[in-house]
Amino acid sequence: MLNFDYHNPTRIAFGQGRIADLATLVPAQAKVLILVGGASAEKTGTLAEVRTALGARTHATFSGIEPNPSYETAMQAVAQIRREGFDFLLAVGGGSVIDAVKFIAAAVPFADGDPWAILEKHGRNVASALPFGTVLTLPATGSEMNNGAVITHRAKAAKLAFSSAHCFPVFSVLDPTKTYTLPPQQLANGVVDAFVHTVEQYLTYPVNALVQDRFAEGLLHTLIEVGPRLLAAPEPVYDDRANLVWAATTALNGFVGAGVPQDWATHMIGHELTATFHIDHARTLAVVLPALLNERRAAKREKLLQYGQRIWGISSGTEDERIDAAIERTRDFFERMGIATRLSAYGVGADAIDGLVAQLQAHGMTRLGEQREITPEVSRRILQAAL
Amino acid sequence: MLNFDYHNPTRIAFGQGRIADLATLVPAQAKVLILVGGASAEKTGTLAEVRTALGARTHATFSGIEPNPSYETAMQAVAQIRREGFDFLLAVGGGSVIDAVKFIAAAVPFADGDPWAILEKHGRNVASALPFGTVLTLPATGSEMNNGAVITHRAKAAKLAFSSAHCFPVFSVLDPTKTYTLPPQQLANGVVDAFVHTVEQYLTYPVNALVQDRFAEGLLHTLIEVGPRLLAAPEPVYDDRANLVWAATTALNGFVGAGVPQDWATHMIGHELTATFHIDHARTLAVVLPALLNERRAAKREKLLQYGQRIWGISSGTEDERIDAAIERTRDFFERMGIATRLSAYGVGADAIDGLVAQLQAHGMTRLGEQREITPEVSRRILQAAL
Repeated sequence: MLNFDYHNPTRIAFGQGRIADLATLVPAQAKVLILVGGASAEKTGTLAEVRTALGARTHATFSGIEPNPSYETAMQAVAQIRREGFDFLLAVGGGSVIDAVKFIAAAVPFADGDPWAILEKHGRNVASALPFGTVLTLPATGSEMNNGAVITHRAKAAKLAFSSAHCFPVFSVLDPTKTYTLPPQQLANGVVDAFVHTVEQYLTYPVNALVQDRFAEGLLHTLIEVGPRLLAAPEPVYDDRANLVWAATTALNGFVGAGVPQDWATHMIGHELTATFHIDHARTLAVVLPALLNERRAAKREKLLQYGQRIWGISSGTEDERIDAAIERTRDFFERMGIATRLSAYGVGADAIDGLVAQLQAHGMTRLGEQREITPEVSRRILQAAL
Repeated sequence: MLNFDYHNPTRIAFGQGRIADLATLVPAQAKVLILVGGASAEKTGTLAEVRTALGARTHATFSGIEPNPSYETAMQAVAQIRREGFDFLLAVGGGSVIDAVKFIAAAVPFADGDPWAILEKHGRNVASALPFGTVLTLPATGSEMNNGAVITHRAKAAKLAFSSAHCFPVFSVLDPTKTYTLPPQQLANGVVDAFVHTVEQYLTYPVNALVQDRFAEGLLHTLIEVGPRLLAAPEPVYDDRANLVWAATTALNGFVGAGVPQDWATHMIGHELTATFHIDHARTLAVVLPALLNERRAAKREKLLQYGQRIWGISSGTEDERIDAAIERTRDFFERMGIATRLSAYGVGADAIDGLVAQLQAHGMTRLGEQREITPEVSRRILQAAL
């Protein structure tokens, strides 16, 4: 096992009806800016519940945070917060809104020029942040219980990540019934996003981290069990939603990844696909992962075999056949979730690859993966294999 | 899944050499009281490492906290802290030292008479506590990453538990090499303690909490894999120690038990055995658990079958035969760890049962278990079956 630090102070209020707890979770004297994406939080009544729970606290609402949240929109919120003096932020939405709020929380007190520098330095220059909480409506990214965020600079077509010890949510309210209005493709995105988060902290090389491996495998089993059921159910089933929410949260709250090597190359290559072609984040992961696992099969051999055996019950055949089968079962799972795993399905052809590789280089993504062996040339082969 | 709250702000510094991190983990201006058990922390050099890391900070050492730490000893530390004005406590040891430090931390500022009231009210009357960190040398109880403690009042022969949001360690240093000097029976105690903690949050009734079940099963698999290897190894193996430490910590940091029913009856009945007969805590659990599972087989039927199947691979026979086999495998595992599972092995006979049941009643332990169905009469049957 590798040495590690683990610290996650986010308070979780989980379950049906927990939005009412905002009455005690938000500081009594706070001046609150609620931040949301589109109109759905208003339409579904979630915002009304939130406002009721906030009671007599002064509050206003900032709406319009887009999927793959942009620096440009976030900076409008920063300006409003500075101008009007809000001292507590409340993200109501999914990973995009929460990621934007993390950046906004760090950007408001940022004193060192343009806050885009926070992304350029991956958060190392964040000295403080406004406190914020979240009300999760879309399970997927795990952002509700970690200190990381991904922001897109539209003018620069750049999608960069940052994290900071100052950017944990103070609390997150996770009410599974808030997922009831999600369309099937967003549920599928959530399942695949959580699945790939787990894989990226698990399918590397063995370091005898038995607890972490078992936890990762437990999340994968849960997502494989619940995913197809979520799509097939004619009406939402509470426990299935609850299991999706908690699996997605725990897939990226630092627990599965403590003390083990990590390989975020799938995310990094996927970010370029989103930045250039606006493909849903989870879908980029479903495209990149099978190709990446195949390309990196030698470096990941032992864990691929363990994954095949423990997750998919693959125990016969040569090692290479078992690895082939494990990758194929992974691809098949994504496809069964209604998510295409080939670039061609998204209208992206071979002519796009030069540009994508150039963007990876421009963003410093030149030595990715747990062994830092995924050079731009390896990324090129992965993208070609994903066509 | 049941609604739940989860909040665990303890910072973990895990790995070989991490005691040096006390230099930054402990506040620079702190006046530190180090608290230890016997002479071993001094003898092994751990205390020297701790003092070096504390550097120029004022510090002193309080030693003599016993296994099953007593109110009486803890109150001596409370008097010293009040007298000499320490403002940060550092527990160096196992669960006994850490539990004592939690009580001491809460007792120092306690303004409402005799701090024993903290135990009598199970912590509900704790309004604040001194900040404290821990350096773990004995993996077992998980106390290093939770807010609970168990204290024995010798004069009253009472062993009671309390917990408080104010009693999380600020940090815990988990260096697996610090377990290298432990005798085999303490390693065995650690494995069994962590195993039973996990079972008590898992073997109840199903609530469709897939993630929690998988995590619990992952811990049990880890302990079953690592336990016998720890006893057999001629020299300590780092990764085995690391896996024991992390499994024991995660077995009781709130994660496995979030959103599921819990059954702490084994602990409560075991506490009386320790209070009356001074049997090691883990050994009381190994005695009570098999008898309790058998007594409660109807209420726990579905989870016992799941446990038998997923943990021990038991899939043939009638349901009752499978449950018998699962309980027998559990007992056998404890025995293989060198831990006797019958009261007779500890010199406790049928004549002791009246007194033990009376103690349970005196301590209010009259409706134990996830269904609150373990009355004193049921506890009596469990103890009789454990003879």
